[in-house]
Amino acid sequence: MKRSTLIEHYRQVRAQSLALVAPLSAEDCCVQSMPDASPAKWHLGHTTWFFETFILETLEEGFKPFDTAFRVLFNSYYKRIGDQHPRAQRGALTRPDLDHVLAYRTDVDKRIAALLANEVSADLHRLVELGLQHEQQHQELLITDIKHLLSLNPLYPAYGAQPAVTNKHAGTSDAGWQDCVGGLVEIGHSGNGFFFDNEAPRHSVFLRPYQLAAGLVTNAQYAAFIEAGGYRQAAHWLAEGWDWQRAQGRAHPLYWREGQSGWQEFTLVGMNDLDLTQPVMHLSYFEADAYARWAQARLPTEAEWEHAVATHAEGLVQLTDQAWQWTASSYAPYPGFQAAADALGEYNSKFMVNQYVLRGGSAATPAGHTRMSYRNFFPAGACWQFSGIRLARDY
Amino acid sequence: MKRSTLIEHYRQVRAQSLALVAPLSAEDCCVQSMPDASPAKWHLGHTTWFFETFILETLEEGFKPFDTAFRVLFNSYYKRIGDQHPRAQRGALTRPDLDHVLAYRTDVDKRIAALLANEVSADLHRLVELGLQHEQQHQELLITDIKHLLSLNPLYPAYGAQPAVTNKHAGTSDAGWQDCVGGLVEIGHSGNGFFFDNEAPRHSVFLRPYQLAAGLVTNAQYAAFIEAGGYRQAAHWLAEGWDWQRAQGRAHPLYWREGQSGWQEFTLVGMNDLDLTQPVMHLSYFEADAYARWAQARLPTEAEWEHAVATHAEGLVQLTDQAWQWTASSYAPYPGFQAAADALGEYNSKFMVNQYVLRGGSAATPAGHTRMSYRNFFPAGACWQFSGIRLARDY
Amino acid sequence: MKRSTLIEHYRQVRAQSLALVAPLSAEDCCVQSMPDASPAKWHLGHTTWFFETFILETLEEGFKPFDTAFRVLFNSYYKRIGDQHPRAQRGALTRPDLDHVLAYRTDVDKRIAALLANEVSADLHRLVELGLQHEQQHQELLITDIKHLLSLNPLYPAYGAQPAVTNKHAGTSDAGWQDCVGGLVEIGHSGNGFFFDNEAPRHSVFLRPYQLAAGLVTNAQYAAFIEAGGYRQAAHWLAEGWDWQRAQGRAHPLYWREGQSGWQEFTLVGMNDLDLTQPVMHLSYFEADAYARWAQARLPTEAEWEHAVATHAEGLVQLTDQAWQWTASSYAPYPGFQAAADALGEYNSKFMVNQYVLRGGSAATPAGHTRMSYRNFFPAGACWQFSGIRLARDY
Amino acid sequence: MKRSTLIEHYRQVRAQSLALVAPLSAEDCCVQSMPDASPAKWHLGHTTWFFETFILETLEEGFKPFDTAFRVLFNSYYKRIGDQHPRAQRGALTRPDLDHVLAYRTDVDKRIAALLANEVSADLHRLVELGLQHEQQHQELLITDIKHLLSLNPLYPAYGAQPAVTNKHAGTSDAGWQDCVGGLVEIGHSGNGFFFDNEAPRHSVFLRPYQLAAGLVTNAQYAAFIEAGGYRQAAHWLAEGWDWQRAQGRAHPLYWREGQSGWQEFTLVGMNDLDLTQPVMHLSYFEADAYARWAQARLPTEAEWEHAVATHAEGLVQLTDQAWQWTASSYAPYPGFQAAADALGEYNSKFMVNQYVLRGGSAATPAGHTRMSYRNFFPAGACWQFSGIRLARDY
Repeated sequence: MKRSTLIEHYRQVRAQSLALVAPLSAEDCCVQSMPDASPAKWHLGHTTWFFETFILETLEEGFKPFDTAFRVLFNSYYKRIGDQHPRAQRGALTRPDLDHVLAYRTDVDKRIAALLANEVSADLHRLVELGLQHEQQHQELLITDIKHLLSLNPLYPAYGAQPAVTNKHAGTSDAGWQDCVGGLVEIGHSGNGFFFDNEAPRHSVFLRPYQLAAGLVTNAQYAAFIEAGGYRQAAHWLAEGWDWQRAQGRAHPLYWREGQSGWQEFTLVGMNDLDLTQPVMHLSYFEADAYARWAQARLPTEAEWEHAVATHAEGLVQLTDQAWQWTASSYAPYPGFQAAADALGEYNSKFMVNQYVLRGGSAATPAGHTRMSYRNFFPAGACWQFSGIRLARDY
Repeated sequence: MKRSTLIEHYRQVRAQSLALVAPLSAEDCCVQSMPDASPAKWHLGHTTWFFETFILETLEEGFKPFDTAFRVLFNSYYKRIGDQHPRAQRGALTRPDLDHVLAYRTDVDKRIAALLANEVSADLHRLVELGLQHEQQHQELLITDIKHLLSLNPLYPAYGAQPAVTNKHAGTSDAGWQDCVGGLVEIGHSGNGFFFDNEAPRHSVFLRPYQLAAGLVTNAQYAAFIEAGGYRQAAHWLAEGWDWQRAQGRAHPLYWREGQSGWQEFTLVGMNDLDLTQPVMHLSYFEADAYARWAQARLPTEAEWEHAVATHAEGLVQLTDQAWQWTASSYAPYPGFQAAADALGEYNSKFMVNQYVLRGGSAATPAGHTRMSYRNFFPAGACWQFSGIRLARDY
Repeated sequence: MKRSTLIEHYRQVRAQSLALVAPLSAEDCCVQSMPDASPAKWHLGHTTWFFETFILETLEEGFKPFDTAFRVLFNSYYKRIGDQHPRAQRGALTRPDLDHVLAYRTDVDKRIAALLANEVSADLHRLVELGLQHEQQHQELLITDIKHLLSLNPLYPAYGAQPAVTNKHAGTSDAGWQDCVGGLVEIGHSGNGFFFDNEAPRHSVFLRPYQLAAGLVTNAQYAAFIEAGGYRQAAHWLAEGWDWQRAQGRAHPLYWREGQSGWQEFTLVGMNDLDLTQPVMHLSYFEADAYARWAQARLPTEAEWEHAVATHAEGLVQLTDQAWQWTASSYAPYPGFQAAADALGEYNSKFMVNQYVLRGGSAATPAGHTRMSYRNFFPAGACWQFSGIRLARDY
Repeated sequence: MKRSTLIEHYRQVRAQSLALVAPLSAEDCCVQSMPDASPAKWHLGHTTWFFETFILETLEEGFKPFDTAFRVLFNSYYKRIGDQHPRAQRGALTRPDLDHVLAYRTDVDKRIAALLANEVSADLHRLVELGLQHEQQHQELLITDIKHLLSLNPLYPAYGAQPAVTNKHAGTSDAGWQDCVGGLVEIGHSGNGFFFDNEAPRHSVFLRPYQLAAGLVTNAQYAAFIEAGGYRQAAHWLAEGWDWQRAQGRAHPLYWREGQSGWQEFTLVGMNDLDLTQPVMHLSYFEADAYARWAQARLPTEAEWEHAVATHAEGLVQLTDQAWQWTASSYAPYPGFQAAADALGEYNSKFMVNQYVLRGGSAATPAGHTRMSYRNFFPAGACWQFSGIRLARDY
């Protein structure tokens, strides 16, 4: 990326975070709906902290922190940086107020701009890019977190305009299956573009012949699973998944509810009648796996997903614009993976246990942030993300 | 109370709630720090709901609710009124926003004013007075809840000016003891003024001779208890109290922390060095009882407290202006007590189990809200109230 | 008590504990069904430990412990004696095995007999009597604990013969009410017989006129409460009681279940059809209070109970032979109460918070162990004791 | 396997279960130490239930259950068979007593012997073999469960003779590393012998060059990790592993404790000084992973483990006779895996989430039960199994 492009990219990504909170009040931005979610204000602060801590602190001459308290307040989980404010207490931070956090953003933006005004070392370039990719990840989290918060409100308020959830390919999962012959293939990032450390190294994987569904499972298809007693028959479920849904009394996706004339779904524009042609989303891994079993199919491995997309993208739709797609792959290091030795090594690697990989992207993923080799990951019980199902089966 | 006095009283009490939130931002007013506490905004809404539900709904001609959703959102626990928004989720209500709740207040105030402009029935008079007493109770909760919220913030922000915690009588607990001969005495409300149902009926109680401490236990005295190993010696503690402090790793009062040069205390003006001459406060019943045992004294019963105040007020200080005083009395109905048959009967009586009575009043209690017969009550583990110790002993 | 009587009493009480476990296997005696309950083997060991620790250790010449490990294993809660094996882990003690614990009993019995063979000091006399009263308390707990354990077994095994639950007075609660005029009365232990420290000192209490039900509430009456929707209407319940039954999905007494032809009840002789004429039992305080409210009555205070029994025993039935009777009185020290300064001071006093007093006695109470002034106590949610209801009302 | 061999094998395996409980009392066999563990008596009953349910019920003429209640009592988790007694309540089953369960074993053994006396169909042969393999799995669980139970007893009683934990290869992990070139290799069961469904199908995996440690990590090596602050430095730990050990205050392996002269370890013969030359065991996945990271190595994948053993067994020691070896592989179906459609399909497949594969075998594994392709699996926090570490690293 040229320096001028980088500067423009920085400006755009940072502006996009502000655009995302534009429909929100300071109150909306402050509250934490559950320990897994963070307040919007915290996302705004933490992404700025990332630039301040990993770039300004080492590369800015005469560095002084904007506010010494922020080093702890906005540290998410980097133990090598020092202490963190407890995750579950992020919502208690009514101070600093939103305006002060916005001032923090402005200040750091100016100082980053000053750094970029001069010659940009390869290291600085890489760190700025990493910071922007990081901010884009938090943009998606900001959307899913605010959606969860609003869903707890019995008024079912709208966030604002629905992110561009278009529906070009509705129903295409019926359209069929893409055949893939498999064999000894390579997956993992290649080329010169940006990638996270967990996407490397590129390596060989042996795949048996398989089919990947052309599109995503729809709300109509998932409603049929419910109708057929899917949540009441243990045979479809992993043992832990069965216990998970029993313990919560879960009998449908997170944001569905039964209305007087059928299913309704809480969305970013409020409570709507369920659009049966849309891909089903906000599913846990357990639900995705149970559905697949009921449908006499299975979830793809991440290698199957990536190889199919690399070789047969033309036969696949709804790859990155609707819902992330749960894979059967536990989140683990690729063969030969080495985490960085410094604090940034904590970015991805320390989460590689008891989480499952999702591939693709969603209606909430920022434009330009998706990648064929991208590995998203969440625990099997997480369902507040835009997470759906693309089926696979043996061929 | 004359009608004009009632109108003026209404105006003052309602204005005082607004004065209390004046130092707070919308963010401060929205967040819930724990299930036991409520957001300031919720207090503002609930106290208004009380007037709307118990007065306007029955007495206003052509009554229409300000917002139908508020009937559920701002119902605290009146099951005979209908559903309630779950207590632990009050902090999720970023909508309605603070401005809308303030508009609710304005609207209800106008409609109450209209009702009071005409002749006021005894029933209306009684209900308005009850609503104002209720609002004053929430004014104190608002202060204790906001203090708890701010205490969770590592920046230790100030609420604003400390409520008038004067210290006229510091150290006076050393000043001695008030002798009381006891005998067959009467307690419970008498006279024509307002009282809550739980203060009646007035009834006879037999008391043995006792002494009541002239003043409250000070921070210095409580620090001596800690210094003497008070939190490490099971012999001072009720079995349940010992388990309570062990489970939480509690080794000092809620808002104390050990600084480099001695004890500090979080207050409404931030983190300060502990003022040793002040009454100790924010104690649980368990801590108050353990201290009393260590000090070779005991907590008074509520009858001892009330009778001493009724007969020897001149020998007692810090009765209502510093900290509520835990009594040894479990919160129970007075002999002959009858709860009202309607929803207002839920106001007090359904909490009469596993709670302990506190008497007096605190620096956070609104002016004019204290009464010799007033019965405050909290579970034995509660310590976010302004709760302290007045000792008693047999004579 | 004469020395020879004491010796004989010792022999009888100790033999009774063995008689109680006669129908049980070593397996039955070892398992702990919940943290609140203890294995029968532990009861046998602990009651023996009491004699060894509080008598032999101080009064036996050349005292050597039977087994040094038992000092910790069989210490229930006496912190001044030293450490305790964790209460919830009593069931993990498969060793020492039952035979070894029985050998422990035999050994301690011999040594106590040796002590009693000579002149018996007043102190020794008092301690032996206390030890026997203590053992009788554990005899009742042994029965209720083993009943709870067997109730968890889907085979619903019988303990053996039902303890003498006679039914002389079935239905007598319909027989009416006993009037009591009250006034300034005295309660608390008097006379020369044994009593626990918590029954003293005798003191004055002022009572308003009241009525006490002649008999206990029957299964038929309680079934009518259920039938009338008692568990579904919040208005009858204390707020904490409502939450308690909701959280557990409780809709009937602990050991009831709905059979195909009506209610059944698990008893010490297995699962039986419910005998509607028997007193209802195994109720929590919350259930007892809710029933009383529904029946337009209330629970008596312990002073009302004791005074009525002292003055009108002839008008009351089922006092001590059926089920303990919940009172409205929180368990608290009597005016002037002083706990002993040594470890035995922990016997009763440290539990005086968040528990409620039960009066009378039950079918599981050892013969000769009941007393008009006896104060039994349990937390409001406890229902595995033989606990029932005697109503009271204002007169 | 010839019919006569099968009959003899049945006899031997069933007898071995009885031999394992020979040192135990009925009390030892009855108690459940935690929800994850089962009583020995339950293991004896459940393994017998397996033969009765999956063989006798379908193949015995005129089948009548030994005891109808056992169908539920001894069903572990087969939902297609019907209800189960709750796992966490297995310890409440003092009835049926041990003798009755032993009679159950004798009865079923006779009936199986009768079936095997005639011609044995391939299906019956397969089911008997499965039942015996199943029983051998429970023999190891019986040992680990009883060890856990005894470890909770402050007397630290011995189970009896230590299982044959020989120490032929102590310290050999220092002996070096086995080089493996990898490439496209095959893993999974092959040949005619017995295997569990989860070991198939055999399939291709691509491996990069790697080294596998010749032996297991020793107690001395693990003690060095502790000494170096291993449990206090977050950098070594997976984020979830760090939280796991913090939440439990874990600072050493499950059965270690600090004695006055160094580490001690609870073993099947009681509390001993730690033998530093032995392989470390009773580690969680989190601990194994943290150790590997600290030692600048990693855990092997299960494919690496199996391929190395298949091709370089001569360079590896302590494969199956000391401790199971955690692998980095999440427990997942092999490509092409199909679970059986009937209840036996629940045997393995429904646990394929959030568990990690262990390979090899341990001192507690029955003779003849180990297999190169064997996949053991437990959640990452499990440490009551004989689980240790064999390191791997890139080559």
